[in-house]
Amino acid sequence: MKLLKIVLSTAALLTISGTAFAQFQNAEKAVEYRQSVFTVMSTHFGRISAVVKGEAPFNKDEVAKNAAIVAMTSTLPWQAFGPGTEGGKAKPEVWSDNAKFKAASEKMQLAAVELNKAAQSGDLDNIKKTFGVTGQACKACHDDFKKK
Amino acid sequence: MKLLKIVLSTAALLTISGTAFAQFQNAEKAVEYRQSVFTVMSTHFGRISAVVKGEAPFNKDEVAKNAAIVAMTSTLPWQAFGPGTEGGKAKPEVWSDNAKFKAASEKMQLAAVELNKAAQSGDLDNIKKTFGVTGQACKACHDDFKKK
Repeated sequence: MKLLKIVLSTAALLTISGTAFAQFQNAEKAVEYRQSVFTVMSTHFGRISAVVKGEAPFNKDEVAKNAAIVAMTSTLPWQAFGPGTEGGKAKPEVWSDNAKFKAASEKMQLAAVELNKAAQSGDLDNIKKTFGVTGQACKACHDDFKKK
Repeated sequence: MKLLKIVLSTAALLTISGTAFAQFQNAEKAVEYRQSVFTVMSTHFGRISAVVKGEAPFNKDEVAKNAAIVAMTSTLPWQAFGPGTEGGKAKPEVWSDNAKFKAASEKMQLAAVELNKAAQSGDLDNIKKTFGVTGQACKACHDDFKKK
């Protein structure tokens, strides 16, 4: 049973963070929003992690749901890093080296799309592979742009 | 351009909150997760609200994206109200009258599905109508189960 079906074209994906879609009442709201998105995303990524590490059984439907949530939420936080929203766990480099940050965010989103494709197909080997690529994309961006 | 396409069957929807999908390391993680989900959901619901109230222009694609996010996130928080996760902004009645809470949560999820259908079709009158029903479902549950 397919509970959630998300279709994200690669070209479409990369336009999301650039839209005017994003408006927050103030910087605090933007920070709260992006931290909330990351909490939801990391929760569901963590559930896939447990399967990949063999700490939880492989249930195809559960992994597919978790990956769909990761793919969708991966598109959301970037809109909340606009000018004037410095703070929270974000390093100043998010704004001072914004092109690099944007590239890193796009790499992660594309990796999440591949993970979701693998998860929807239910191929565990491919899930493990794309999970690893996604995790590396998360880590690379955190290393450069997230406070310890 | 359709960025996000979410298909949620009604029958499938109502099974989500009952699955074993939900595991949190501890109560604090569950509270943080559910509050994060509500933050994301209310942000995107608020963007539709601005359109419905005439405070923002009606952009069909933006409303469709926001409604898809509302529909998806509406399925998520309930898994994080398990036994032993009392606290946060939740009233004790979530646990002491759990059947009523579950019914209220399902009413909201179904309303969000209808809002999403209307938003994907782009019919503003129907968006307004289903938005109103969804907002009432949010409020009814908050009145009974959320601390002021």
